[in-house]
Amino acid sequence: MKFEKVALIGCGLMGGSFALAAREAGWAQHIVGYSASASSRQKALSMGVIDAAEDSIAQAVQGADLVLLAVPVTATNACFEAIAPALRSDALLMEVGSTKSDIVAAALNTLGDKLHCFVPVHPIAGKEVAGVEHADADLYKDRALIMTPMASSGASQVQLAKQIWQSLGSFITELSPAAHDAAFAAVSHMPHVLAYALIRGIFQQKNGADLIALGGPGFRDFSRIAASDPVVWRDILTTNREQVLLQIAHFKDALEEFENAIEAKHPKALEDMIRQASDLRFKWRIGANQTPKA
Amino acid sequence: MKFEKVALIGCGLMGGSFALAAREAGWAQHIVGYSASASSRQKALSMGVIDAAEDSIAQAVQGADLVLLAVPVTATNACFEAIAPALRSDALLMEVGSTKSDIVAAALNTLGDKLHCFVPVHPIAGKEVAGVEHADADLYKDRALIMTPMASSGASQVQLAKQIWQSLGSFITELSPAAHDAAFAAVSHMPHVLAYALIRGIFQQKNGADLIALGGPGFRDFSRIAASDPVVWRDILTTNREQVLLQIAHFKDALEEFENAIEAKHPKALEDMIRQASDLRFKWRIGANQTPKA
Repeated sequence: MKFEKVALIGCGLMGGSFALAAREAGWAQHIVGYSASASSRQKALSMGVIDAAEDSIAQAVQGADLVLLAVPVTATNACFEAIAPALRSDALLMEVGSTKSDIVAAALNTLGDKLHCFVPVHPIAGKEVAGVEHADADLYKDRALIMTPMASSGASQVQLAKQIWQSLGSFITELSPAAHDAAFAAVSHMPHVLAYALIRGIFQQKNGADLIALGGPGFRDFSRIAASDPVVWRDILTTNREQVLLQIAHFKDALEEFENAIEAKHPKALEDMIRQASDLRFKWRIGANQTPKA
Repeated sequence: MKFEKVALIGCGLMGGSFALAAREAGWAQHIVGYSASASSRQKALSMGVIDAAEDSIAQAVQGADLVLLAVPVTATNACFEAIAPALRSDALLMEVGSTKSDIVAAALNTLGDKLHCFVPVHPIAGKEVAGVEHADADLYKDRALIMTPMASSGASQVQLAKQIWQSLGSFITELSPAAHDAAFAAVSHMPHVLAYALIRGIFQQKNGADLIALGGPGFRDFSRIAASDPVVWRDILTTNREQVLLQIAHFKDALEEFENAIEAKHPKALEDMIRQASDLRFKWRIGANQTPKA
């Protein structure tokens, strides 16, 4: 596997980490980058993350055999429109956002006769800090990657996409876009909402700042995800609105069961519910359902 | 500071770690231990955590100048009753549970003319695993310790208690028992309830096991506390019932604001709320309100 020209659309944490990892893996001969912000492009260039910074999406994509789109989800549609006319018909185009149904709809609307080039993916990796300065060649290593190929995705593109992420050390799971969005509403989007709501609920109390200052290691780990980028998470929650609302409803039912058991002083019921959750969490292992790379 | 005989009532993770740390700090000449379970006592003895295992609380406490009570909160009352008659009048008695108002009430009811010996504390430290086999001499190092002295606590006992925990590397904050329980309902008990309820809410869905298997690093850290000991957490939530229910109410208000902003497709309101929580969490540092040891 070799790519002559890799084009990065979006030179942030996710795109920058992909470029660094690709360079280490040895299959990227030349990496060019485009970012909406000129200063981000220059930063990526001066850090050696990309070999050249381009002034437009069309220039970056021209002649590339691999294009990675790593921009906030609200920018995806416009980027697809700019990518499509410039894209080689045999190229592989991937996009790495945290929601997938909306991305698939955008691709259907915009990619036209280049639709077969496109394979949507979601690497389950990230940091609470944004920007290429935090890019990390090992970000995708030993991490799950969800691939949500479309019926229209070319067989060779899907095959190449798998090889690429396996070469970066990711474990690949295939899901439909809808199944992806339902699952991640539960295990990713909900924990964010709950961490935000906990902090808001505490801070709105008159001594909220004093209370939060007393948090220990449990609070630290529980709320770590609340520090993630607000624009990215606004977009994820609005984009995946229906699934998130469904999960909020499931959560509220479960919370009410705990509230009732505490209120009714029913220690046996409370212990049983805690024990079930505790056993499940104790046995849980990250990536336990994923097979290591072939 | 020197203690001739340290008595550990409860040879589990918390008590065992205290014994190991005390030994390292050099002020404990002889450490004896009692545990309700004979096998725990023997394990602590064979691991060298204690120098002698005693068959009763009275035997362990007899002649001790320092007694540490580290048992599940529901056992505290009975332990106090057994400790009081055997306790030296000049001894320091500490108890390390996660709730304090109930412990103070139990002390008032049981300790009689030994009440001045008692100083309640809460080390903000722990693990998701129980038992002396996980004891760690560094468990309390660089950790907050909340001290909730009673009006009846002897001045010399309070002073000694401070010196002890400072010698183990803890940062001491003084709070009233009621303020302690209100604060920890918010920053510790609530995160546990939310982590339990998230897991329960997911697992009650028909494909719950498949969903949970897809969790990534965010889910891992958010739900880590859910694996904690079910009996300990049943006791904490029932003991601190009123404060926990109050915090659940605050949380539900905040969750509803998020739900409404998502439901109403109001991205600006949603972003503002996320940004506030994100800024607060980004600036938050564990123990930022505590001064390092003198």
